[in-house]
Amino acid sequence: MNGAFHEATVTLVDGMHFTGQTGADGFAIHLDAAEEHGGRGLGGSPVKMVLVALAGCTAMDVLSILRKKRENVTGLVVNVRGERAEEHPKVYTRLEIEYRVTGRGVSPAAVERAITLSIDRYCPVAGMLKQAAPITTRYQIVEAA
Amino acid sequence: MNGAFHEATVTLVDGMHFTGQTGADGFAIHLDAAEEHGGRGLGGSPVKMVLVALAGCTAMDVLSILRKKRENVTGLVVNVRGERAEEHPKVYTRLEIEYRVTGRGVSPAAVERAITLSIDRYCPVAGMLKQAAPITTRYQIVEAA
Repeated sequence: MNGAFHEATVTLVDGMHFTGQTGADGFAIHLDAAEEHGGRGLGGSPVKMVLVALAGCTAMDVLSILRKKRENVTGLVVNVRGERAEEHPKVYTRLEIEYRVTGRGVSPAAVERAITLSIDRYCPVAGMLKQAAPITTRYQIVEAA
Repeated sequence: MNGAFHEATVTLVDGMHFTGQTGADGFAIHLDAAEEHGGRGLGGSPVKMVLVALAGCTAMDVLSILRKKRENVTGLVVNVRGERAEEHPKVYTRLEIEYRVTGRGVSPAAVERAITLSIDRYCPVAGMLKQAAPITTRYQIVEAA
């Protein structure tokens, strides 16, 4: 590979338990299969990591864009649901993202714009997954106490 | 959603630091942006989680298939490299997977077959990502000491 690249490595511990690491940043996570697939549940499921990646990627985009616009955001929760195909390889066939933005006087138009920018332009995880499954979004704004 | 689905949620801690959780299994991971993107490196990068997901998914498939074939596998390391597009959303444009299988008398044909079955049929992460970027694989077999 000649251009910029990212790297990750998983290493078997035992059973179906692996540790995962991303490049040189020293970050490590545990992965394991569920008990019905020969694992002992000692870590996350790889396919669900895709949903965490999508949620985290778009959450960081939206937060960053709203902060740049000086919106007073005090909390953000992003939930992703992926509907699975019945047949192997059981890909996600539909992805629903829900953003719950907490803050003071946060503009709905700014939230909508931030979500659109993330899904259509900035989030690489969405950019890849939408080739495989349609992504829908919705949001709610909660006034901070 | 009416069919089977998976779910993940990320929750802002502070800065660009989020905790991620998958469904009801209690598994939690930390996500954060790099310092140049307003984070403090307190967790993994969401887009790199996609590579961890791909590596873990195909590693579990290959291990499971080789064990079913009674191959004597004692170790497995799977490395994934993703070449990034220069333009936003900076998706991975090419994915290279390298499998390093350690064991006693492991059959190269069995390893090749296990990899093909994973990428072409069983691994949902590969099933989704190959819609967005070509995936190439290679392997080496190391005789256990």
